[in-house]
Amino acid sequence: MEQQIRVAVAGANGRMGQEVVTMLGQDKQLVYVGALDTRGEDEAIRARLEEMKPDVLVDFTTPHSVYRHLEICLQHGIRPVVGTTGLSQDEIQEMTRRFGEAGLGCIVAPNFAIGAILCMKFAAMAAKYMPHVEIIELHHDRKLDAPSGTALKTAEMIAAVREEIKQGHPEEKETIPGARGAEYEGFRIHSVRLPGMVAHQEVLFGATGQTLSIRHDSINRESFMPGVNMAIKAVMNMNGFLYGLEHLID
Amino acid sequence: MEQQIRVAVAGANGRMGQEVVTMLGQDKQLVYVGALDTRGEDEAIRARLEEMKPDVLVDFTTPHSVYRHLEICLQHGIRPVVGTTGLSQDEIQEMTRRFGEAGLGCIVAPNFAIGAILCMKFAAMAAKYMPHVEIIELHHDRKLDAPSGTALKTAEMIAAVREEIKQGHPEEKETIPGARGAEYEGFRIHSVRLPGMVAHQEVLFGATGQTLSIRHDSINRESFMPGVNMAIKAVMNMNGFLYGLEHLID
Amino acid sequence: MEQQIRVAVAGANGRMGQEVVTMLGQDKQLVYVGALDTRGEDEAIRARLEEMKPDVLVDFTTPHSVYRHLEICLQHGIRPVVGTTGLSQDEIQEMTRRFGEAGLGCIVAPNFAIGAILCMKFAAMAAKYMPHVEIIELHHDRKLDAPSGTALKTAEMIAAVREEIKQGHPEEKETIPGARGAEYEGFRIHSVRLPGMVAHQEVLFGATGQTLSIRHDSINRESFMPGVNMAIKAVMNMNGFLYGLEHLID
Amino acid sequence: MEQQIRVAVAGANGRMGQEVVTMLGQDKQLVYVGALDTRGEDEAIRARLEEMKPDVLVDFTTPHSVYRHLEICLQHGIRPVVGTTGLSQDEIQEMTRRFGEAGLGCIVAPNFAIGAILCMKFAAMAAKYMPHVEIIELHHDRKLDAPSGTALKTAEMIAAVREEIKQGHPEEKETIPGARGAEYEGFRIHSVRLPGMVAHQEVLFGATGQTLSIRHDSINRESFMPGVNMAIKAVMNMNGFLYGLEHLID
Repeated sequence: MEQQIRVAVAGANGRMGQEVVTMLGQDKQLVYVGALDTRGEDEAIRARLEEMKPDVLVDFTTPHSVYRHLEICLQHGIRPVVGTTGLSQDEIQEMTRRFGEAGLGCIVAPNFAIGAILCMKFAAMAAKYMPHVEIIELHHDRKLDAPSGTALKTAEMIAAVREEIKQGHPEEKETIPGARGAEYEGFRIHSVRLPGMVAHQEVLFGATGQTLSIRHDSINRESFMPGVNMAIKAVMNMNGFLYGLEHLID
Repeated sequence: MEQQIRVAVAGANGRMGQEVVTMLGQDKQLVYVGALDTRGEDEAIRARLEEMKPDVLVDFTTPHSVYRHLEICLQHGIRPVVGTTGLSQDEIQEMTRRFGEAGLGCIVAPNFAIGAILCMKFAAMAAKYMPHVEIIELHHDRKLDAPSGTALKTAEMIAAVREEIKQGHPEEKETIPGARGAEYEGFRIHSVRLPGMVAHQEVLFGATGQTLSIRHDSINRESFMPGVNMAIKAVMNMNGFLYGLEHLID
Repeated sequence: MEQQIRVAVAGANGRMGQEVVTMLGQDKQLVYVGALDTRGEDEAIRARLEEMKPDVLVDFTTPHSVYRHLEICLQHGIRPVVGTTGLSQDEIQEMTRRFGEAGLGCIVAPNFAIGAILCMKFAAMAAKYMPHVEIIELHHDRKLDAPSGTALKTAEMIAAVREEIKQGHPEEKETIPGARGAEYEGFRIHSVRLPGMVAHQEVLFGATGQTLSIRHDSINRESFMPGVNMAIKAVMNMNGFLYGLEHLID
Repeated sequence: MEQQIRVAVAGANGRMGQEVVTMLGQDKQLVYVGALDTRGEDEAIRARLEEMKPDVLVDFTTPHSVYRHLEICLQHGIRPVVGTTGLSQDEIQEMTRRFGEAGLGCIVAPNFAIGAILCMKFAAMAAKYMPHVEIIELHHDRKLDAPSGTALKTAEMIAAVREEIKQGHPEEKETIPGARGAEYEGFRIHSVRLPGMVAHQEVLFGATGQTLSIRHDSINRESFMPGVNMAIKAVMNMNGFLYGLEHLID
């Protein structure tokens, strides 16, 4: 049998934390060693970690707590798996250096839904060969911003590799403004908002006589658990800092 | 066996005309009696029709020829099946009156693709029960106007029956202009333009916990033939003028 | 303002009952007058109903309770809206007669998801004009039976109106058995089972040069509420028994 | 400007050959130097090649001609780009050795539709992280075999990397045989056959709370041209034999 991995969870009572605890209980390789109360003093946190002796700390708490936990993990040789978008570029650079010097694995990722990460990665790969592309993202109608953050991240990854072309007929015209969607570096993004939707994204590529589409549908936060599971196992074999789960995928 | 129907074709050498002749040859109930040269004098046309003795004249020629043919058909008791968007409202009203008085069947329709007509009809039916709706239409990238004529016609049919609501979050904002598409009476239309597409339309309805989508894909003009076939048979049992194939569908 | 409707709920503590109570609270035309405990004696139930004076009783309990409630509703002039698949054909016939004689509205339906009902209804309408059809239904991988009950009901509705043809190439062969799916009266049904799916169905129609698809996606039981809402309002204007929500849709 | 590439076409009058000639005319980097009549004697072919001085020979002819052309190309230092499924394993091994020894680029591929190749490649990548998968392939109803060759090739690529699991409920049962499709190494393939379809494939992955789908739609043989274009440019920088376009994609 594979070596078991001891896992502590910060914020185990939060919605994500509860999902993580449930997931740990379903994988025999992973042992849940306890919750970390993130509101205590540093000393209390250290004492608790020494008691639980985790290999990995899963952390879906606030950016402020995350930074503090990263420092403590460094000192105790515990490998963090962190889900937050709140670290600054400076903090990411600092931690990249410090975990690298310590030779200690650490993963921080804004999105743990493995399907979303594959969707973005494949979109960027396809854009090299099929540069004509449009993105349609569909979300529930309580969402405030359009396009979605994931669509913008996907568009950015596409634009980084795509031959720069202005799509559509040069003389095309909108008889109603907005019909052709949001323009992003020569291609278009469309945002659909409807009740009954959760979080969906389709990236459409067209070339003569053919189309290719890559679609991700997410219906709840359980969808993040396979990504967390993969990250826990991967961080054990790493000796430095990694930002973004897409780098684990080959 | 069912009564055979004698069919003449105006513009039999055009692209649509050729498809019609091929289709007639594949249905034993229909007999192709010959082509009508539309460039001749009225007298030549009358003589040719008296020679062929058609029950039905299928006509995919120009608006100018169509009007002239309708007049001749009225006088000869021939039932026209016409595909054109070029008749004016006045001409349609005039022909509605005259074919009605004559008790003679006549069908004029802008679109003979039966799937497109079903898509529009179902969309209008669904909008009564699921008023949250968005339209995505996808066409090849040589198309000039957005949204497409079919999308606008569909939107019009939806708006005629839909409870008037302003969709989306009241405070939603576009971080890139156009992301939320074209606004039409409180709902949105999105136009995708990519090589490899032909003519496609998806109407999406959302309600709590569920979505319904109706999609039509058209890849060539053969797709109009089942609609022409249906119209030829239907016009034999009609005693007046009909505009739009959707009225044949129950 | 429209006349308010007083609604009691049997099984208000069940998962569906709770959804119904929440929905009633969101519609000003509907007044929730209380829960009916279905485990009591008939006398207790009568007394409770006389106290609450509902116009409508919504009932998502067991088939046994449902039958008993229908009898009591008949005597008290209360209009039932019932979601169950458990009534026998004999019981349905009996209630059709008795509610008809009483001139009292009653709706019993196996499925209240309005999108699913529209999907089935449109599929049956389209099959008249596009007889080449296949059904793909997709569900979570804990589902035991394939095809799904909804797919079979849809297939039955299609078969009732569809020209009988044997689809596919007459000499087509499966190099792996089952590739072409389940055969139902000459057309095919395919059942996909994957984690991450909930309950989805796509009905695909093909004709020369075009395809039409009608798809319903359901992600939770909230999706039944608009149908329950519609039924409550409709049953007030009915004077007999109705089985199946599709008959309310025109 | 990039170095121009001189391209001859074997079978230039065939359907694929004509498409290739048209494509060459649209790319300034490529120069069409003439057609190779494949029915002549070897001497005639050699003379014609010496006259045209091509860098690359594009060949969509018969397997018999292809083998002969490969030999002549080896002797003349011309780089072949070949579309055929007809070479035997022995012939492929022989040519791998001989082109390798000669240090001369050569590409042979059964499928040049770049979207189809990306679809297969992405499917194989995703299966490592989301092992629950089903394939739906949809073709016109004149197709004889089910599943399609592309679906089988995709399934093989998935099986090579996927954790071996038996999908679906262990006690699931088909109430109509075939509902769950063709079984291939524990996962399922479904084959839809409808008029109006051309060649389509969707690979569906499911995990808790999410699904990922990768779909390719092909509507005509023009869809092969971007792949041929890419292969012509790639073969100039290769010094050996390559089977399958997927190896060009990173």
